[in-house]
Amino acid sequence: MTDDAFLDDLTAALPKGALRPIAPHYLEEPRGRWIGHARAVIAPGTVEQAAAALRLAARAGVPVVPYGGGTGLVGGQVADGGPAPLVVSLERMSRVRSIHPDENVMVVEAGAILSDVHEATLSADRLFPLSIAAKGSARIGGLLATNAGGVNVLRYGNARDLCLGLEAVMPDGSIWHGLKRLRKDNTGYDLRDLLIGSEGTLGLITAAVLKLSPRPAGEGTALMIVPGPAAALRLLALARDHMGEGVSAFELMHRQSLNFLAETMPQLRQPFATPPEWFVLIDVGLARGLVPATALEALFADAFGRGLVTDGLIAQSEAQRAEFWTLRESVPAANRVIGAVSSHDVSLPLSAVAEFIEKGAGVIAAIGEFRINCFGHLGDGNLHYNVFPMPGRSRADHEGQREAIKRAVHDLVHSMGGSVSAEHGIGRLKVDDLERYADPAKLAAMRRIKAALDPQGIMNPGAVLRI
Amino acid sequence: MTDDAFLDDLTAALPKGALRPIAPHYLEEPRGRWIGHARAVIAPGTVEQAAAALRLAARAGVPVVPYGGGTGLVGGQVADGGPAPLVVSLERMSRVRSIHPDENVMVVEAGAILSDVHEATLSADRLFPLSIAAKGSARIGGLLATNAGGVNVLRYGNARDLCLGLEAVMPDGSIWHGLKRLRKDNTGYDLRDLLIGSEGTLGLITAAVLKLSPRPAGEGTALMIVPGPAAALRLLALARDHMGEGVSAFELMHRQSLNFLAETMPQLRQPFATPPEWFVLIDVGLARGLVPATALEALFADAFGRGLVTDGLIAQSEAQRAEFWTLRESVPAANRVIGAVSSHDVSLPLSAVAEFIEKGAGVIAAIGEFRINCFGHLGDGNLHYNVFPMPGRSRADHEGQREAIKRAVHDLVHSMGGSVSAEHGIGRLKVDDLERYADPAKLAAMRRIKAALDPQGIMNPGAVLRI
Repeated sequence: MTDDAFLDDLTAALPKGALRPIAPHYLEEPRGRWIGHARAVIAPGTVEQAAAALRLAARAGVPVVPYGGGTGLVGGQVADGGPAPLVVSLERMSRVRSIHPDENVMVVEAGAILSDVHEATLSADRLFPLSIAAKGSARIGGLLATNAGGVNVLRYGNARDLCLGLEAVMPDGSIWHGLKRLRKDNTGYDLRDLLIGSEGTLGLITAAVLKLSPRPAGEGTALMIVPGPAAALRLLALARDHMGEGVSAFELMHRQSLNFLAETMPQLRQPFATPPEWFVLIDVGLARGLVPATALEALFADAFGRGLVTDGLIAQSEAQRAEFWTLRESVPAANRVIGAVSSHDVSLPLSAVAEFIEKGAGVIAAIGEFRINCFGHLGDGNLHYNVFPMPGRSRADHEGQREAIKRAVHDLVHSMGGSVSAEHGIGRLKVDDLERYADPAKLAAMRRIKAALDPQGIMNPGAVLRI
Repeated sequence: MTDDAFLDDLTAALPKGALRPIAPHYLEEPRGRWIGHARAVIAPGTVEQAAAALRLAARAGVPVVPYGGGTGLVGGQVADGGPAPLVVSLERMSRVRSIHPDENVMVVEAGAILSDVHEATLSADRLFPLSIAAKGSARIGGLLATNAGGVNVLRYGNARDLCLGLEAVMPDGSIWHGLKRLRKDNTGYDLRDLLIGSEGTLGLITAAVLKLSPRPAGEGTALMIVPGPAAALRLLALARDHMGEGVSAFELMHRQSLNFLAETMPQLRQPFATPPEWFVLIDVGLARGLVPATALEALFADAFGRGLVTDGLIAQSEAQRAEFWTLRESVPAANRVIGAVSSHDVSLPLSAVAEFIEKGAGVIAAIGEFRINCFGHLGDGNLHYNVFPMPGRSRADHEGQREAIKRAVHDLVHSMGGSVSAEHGIGRLKVDDLERYADPAKLAAMRRIKAALDPQGIMNPGAVLRI
């Protein structure tokens, strides 16, 4: 089939306006590692239109690349090799279909932007707790396809844990109507969790039932200086003994983050007169009858008595809470300005985190002189472990060492029972890593599942599994 | 291959004692609907032994039926047709391999009994919150294979939500080493959640990483009389507004339960002088700084002001808490004595529960005169909806109506967006229901996945999917 015949069929099958110009942003990703190509871009308005397009693509053997907000960090959203694909953007399927505050549930289309979902739930006095830095652009379909994590996983789980049901187009163009608003449903295999995290390689998510939460009666935030990562983990356990699920976020930060912020964003107020080596941001959301600042003070006093904290700041206002969070959320931007030689999104068993940080410094030092900025979602054992040039040097000076650094960090993580992709996924960036580190039986099962559900291999080829 | 050759190979491959006598309990299930058969029963002591046995079975084309505690209610554990299978009992793989209180994680073998897991976690000052009536016999492998639910799903999720990693033997006899102690791991398809809930049809679970929780600082329980199911649901929302995740269980009960308890267990103390038509059992576990009984009183006062409750009892001691729970947990036993014509394990969107209860009474009345005992995990939208003969009649009098009742209840549930198996699974009992009610695209995907992972169809044939 020629290009023209496929495009003619698409044009005939879809309403006017569904076929889009091939704009540059459909072919780019945030870190600029790949430039994709496309035979056509469509933005279906309904699941039936998406299904019709996938059936045509299957018939013509044209690959399909689902496109959400384009914010993924592992290249899952851009195909840069093979036959030019049909890019299916969900941007026109962005409605909140329904919201059920009494059920703590909402039904949204896959193109809904995360911050719009937040607004819609807040106006219904509910919380959709998934939150990542790219919330202003990331869309629900992509967040589910990559099983996004973020800062509230400790309390509320990742994207998979926040989804009750899906509507999706399968690779053969059939529609799975799985928008069940149920907390319990043991009727067969978990197709939902299989599509979630499959990064568009097993089907196209078009809508989802999301789990909401009641809003905590009161919220509070503190920065606490800790002697080191091991003490931070004991502080986390103590915080959960005090407040149970009330601990919403527990983020580790290093002096390096403060230094990078001072260098790149001098307008940000630094929280400490003397930057401590390690500190944590603790965020809590508590039930009625508890005052967050008081509970944080009690935690601090208990932890101080145990030598787990040496100093700290408890936010006295919403403005100060926001200030603490801005600090944490500005770190990735500061990192981008400095320019990492190599970035790693890893997770470890909680009790191995401190040892990993110590050993990691050793393996990096064995390669050369670098600055390490290690920070992240300590409560989930998830560290963003980024390696930077020394002052006066640039990432370009270290091109030849990048692979060695990545390999050394990932080998160490793997040897300690960790994961080389905690929350970003595999995409096109980590296909080699998956082949290197995945359990062989799991990898074999993945390949069989892919071949079974997508025998033509048209869904996002080259992502997750090698073609 | 003859029986003898297969048995000879098994005997040669496994250590002495792994081959067991074919005792009757391996061939029975609690409701006595099926009597299974077996070519042999083995109890491997290690995953390698289990894998060796599965490889022999695959070579000989002998079906394999995994056997945990034998407590499943849908016949997943007994094969009553086809070639006699190899029954693989996990009873000798029952160790706690390790417990990590600082990570809130434990690693257990699939044969561990749930109540033993509870004891082990409590002695480490942690909580494994999965709890069902059969906890004294049910084993972890079976609980995961069926994605068990129970009374704490509202707060802590079902078995799937409480598992971080698996070790399993795949149908070809390969071993998946997936015992990761990680909260975040986005490296490929979710094989874990696919095996969980697949009822032994995609592989044999031999060990699991379980998620633990801190123990709440204080716990409390109340019985509250409500005007009806709709008010009960509003009370649930109010309770969560007051106490957030602190609401651990929210169980609905009807006067019928109290009547059945009075009839079958007169020694149980009835909680109310006059049995109310509807009441709920609320269980809470709260953080430091809150007194559960006080919080429940505040909830009651608020709810009373809104007309959501008319009276109630707040447990004043641990003994009274236990008494309230005994009442709830004795209902299934009372039901068994009375003898249901038809039992249903259904779930509904929360906001449809009250309407379902009303309509359900109508569809049953259209079939004949019956007593309905409707109770269960209201917080999860999960009702056990059981239909009994009138006094003086027996279930035998209604044999001819059972199918009509089941069909009417399930049709109603399905028409309201519900599930015909909320927590028990499909097993052999509900294969027809799955075919009738499942989404066709999902069912097609399930069949493809089964054929891809188990091309010979040897894993628990006849369960979940028709052979």
